[in-house]
Amino acid sequence: MTSTRIQNALQLRSLVKKTGELELSLVEIPVPEPKPDEVVIRVEAAPLNPSDLGNLFAGADLRSAHFAGSATRPVVTAPISPGALKALAGRVEVSSPVGNEGAGLVVEAGSSPEAQALLGRTVAALGGGMYAQARCVQVAQCLLLPEGTSAAEGASAFVNPLTALGMVETMRREGHTALVHTAAASNLGQMLHRLCIQEGIGLVNIVRKPEQVKLLAGLGAVHVCNSTAPEFMQELTDALAATGATLAFDATGGGKLASQILTAMEAALSRKAAGYSRYGTSVHKQVYIYGGLERGPTELNRSFGMAWGIGGWLVFPYLQKIGPETAQKLKARAAAGLKTTFASNYSREISLAEALAPDAIALYGTQATGAKVLINPNKGVGAK
Amino acid sequence: MTSTRIQNALQLRSLVKKTGELELSLVEIPVPEPKPDEVVIRVEAAPLNPSDLGNLFAGADLRSAHFAGSATRPVVTAPISPGALKALAGRVEVSSPVGNEGAGLVVEAGSSPEAQALLGRTVAALGGGMYAQARCVQVAQCLLLPEGTSAAEGASAFVNPLTALGMVETMRREGHTALVHTAAASNLGQMLHRLCIQEGIGLVNIVRKPEQVKLLAGLGAVHVCNSTAPEFMQELTDALAATGATLAFDATGGGKLASQILTAMEAALSRKAAGYSRYGTSVHKQVYIYGGLERGPTELNRSFGMAWGIGGWLVFPYLQKIGPETAQKLKARAAAGLKTTFASNYSREISLAEALAPDAIALYGTQATGAKVLINPNKGVGAK
Repeated sequence: MTSTRIQNALQLRSLVKKTGELELSLVEIPVPEPKPDEVVIRVEAAPLNPSDLGNLFAGADLRSAHFAGSATRPVVTAPISPGALKALAGRVEVSSPVGNEGAGLVVEAGSSPEAQALLGRTVAALGGGMYAQARCVQVAQCLLLPEGTSAAEGASAFVNPLTALGMVETMRREGHTALVHTAAASNLGQMLHRLCIQEGIGLVNIVRKPEQVKLLAGLGAVHVCNSTAPEFMQELTDALAATGATLAFDATGGGKLASQILTAMEAALSRKAAGYSRYGTSVHKQVYIYGGLERGPTELNRSFGMAWGIGGWLVFPYLQKIGPETAQKLKARAAAGLKTTFASNYSREISLAEALAPDAIALYGTQATGAKVLINPNKGVGAK
Repeated sequence: MTSTRIQNALQLRSLVKKTGELELSLVEIPVPEPKPDEVVIRVEAAPLNPSDLGNLFAGADLRSAHFAGSATRPVVTAPISPGALKALAGRVEVSSPVGNEGAGLVVEAGSSPEAQALLGRTVAALGGGMYAQARCVQVAQCLLLPEGTSAAEGASAFVNPLTALGMVETMRREGHTALVHTAAASNLGQMLHRLCIQEGIGLVNIVRKPEQVKLLAGLGAVHVCNSTAPEFMQELTDALAATGATLAFDATGGGKLASQILTAMEAALSRKAAGYSRYGTSVHKQVYIYGGLERGPTELNRSFGMAWGIGGWLVFPYLQKIGPETAQKLKARAAAGLKTTFASNYSREISLAEALAPDAIALYGTQATGAKVLINPNKGVGAK
């Protein structure tokens, strides 16, 4: 197979203007010739993950968005509050590419054997800026997809699978034996559910809607608690007592949920504790916040003794912490399970221009369960 | 020296009634004959630490206290809110002794050589129930005070000195190089200040009043920030940048202070950081909450990146965690510094009955700087 030189490609850009305005647009960028250890990917599938939405929207209020430009070159603008703008100092007047991960065909390869081996193959890449028709990335950022795996199937090969695997790894390394997960009906939540079944790990799923309880129960989840139900604390405490979970991963961040989880963990532990201690049980209870679906402050009532911790958790810094050898093992597991344990579901496949249309933003901007969107930057562009 | 048999002793008791009422009173208890590895201490000095106040008051509203009984046998009652009562289930109708630590003369000793060696000597003890005229405790709970150290000087030999030493130990073990401390004008705060000077550790002191800034500055503290001053965040960030502190110990617990500290740490780190990251700097920032001067919820605005943690911290579980060998070293250091680094100050010395008088409770109940009180259970009882 010979290389096909792609000279230019459309890329989605997010720009924070110093006037306090977000501007989303498509920009034509030159695609560099790959260095020896690089390949050029014709991107055919890239998911809109919550972590991408943060980069894309930069805290702007999309409900007040203004839509302009043409159908093929739309331009979206939206106001950013002064408070949010302050936190974005490093992004002001910098046109940022978006899209942590994606998959597609390697259409050009550098001279190294590793790069040449990928030519003509479908790979996933954690390259950043993947909302683009073509991306030149390092071979080390690529994952060769198993034969018969499509770009759409491999688009979410990194963020969600490695997050689920990283959560289980954290659980084991920090001496816990079961898990709690919030926003548990998400793509990630469903992966974690399947992974925990495989590994025989007790999992307490927390969701916010009755239909999400049904969804997870239908998938075979044993413990699903609805945080908006009046009996939530009782059900959660029972589920924690049954599983022994003392570690939670929380995607919501804001509000009282983390505090409620710690309170219920302490209540479950107290059922077995002998005698009263003003400082609570001596068993360490931990919540890691890995997302911010609720933007408001986190409120802790501290009614859960003194053996507790809360902290931020991110998968890629975590993989760095546990070292390349273990990280590589987790990546191989993710790749092997793309059609099973780590399969993703999307509600729509859209082009780059469609991603900036009002209806698409209204859909994926909600971050609702079942609203996950896949961008195909080459949709409608014609076959290679 | 021959043993003097003390048959009975007055002891201060805290009782949570099932009716939702706290009752504080003095109870005459029999003093058991010491077993081989036990000694009986005639308690002459026991501090009222914040941790004791929690046990003593059990969350009751002392502003609504009722004072009855006689001058020598006072009885204080105060209402406990239904919410607080719920958390006290294990204490209801249990008459609890109070007073974690204290010091006094060993007047009776068991048959073991270790016990006999303490007879006639002044010791400090972490025995619990030390607000009593006499306490029978294990030799292992005692610390022989250096020659020439009085019971009053040795009364606070455990809780505060070991807390200060434990904070520094935590800092080193968790890879930090400087500290932040809140409620920093307290007895503990002043100890930590002297300890950090000795060890060459940068310390950022946070206080709530201008006179506390003056007090600490007068003791040679370099960084003292008043959290009620309008320029607090700026001064705190400057102090954090100057010291490089990424670990804080917070005695207040509730409110926004922990969040402000993490925010200022992140701002100080960002000054040196290259480029913008949506997830903030990669340097881990930690706040340990070790007290609850502010009873309200802890509010975190999470505007400090993702590399952060908050958790409970207690000195005695921590000493268990680091093992008996290191703990013993810290105890020896505490004993050696009782007149210098680990010296305590008290505003008043009061008897057991005086401790239940309205004016005394009004004084020590505020937990204000300079309001620390020492109980001498044998005050006015006459020399042995």
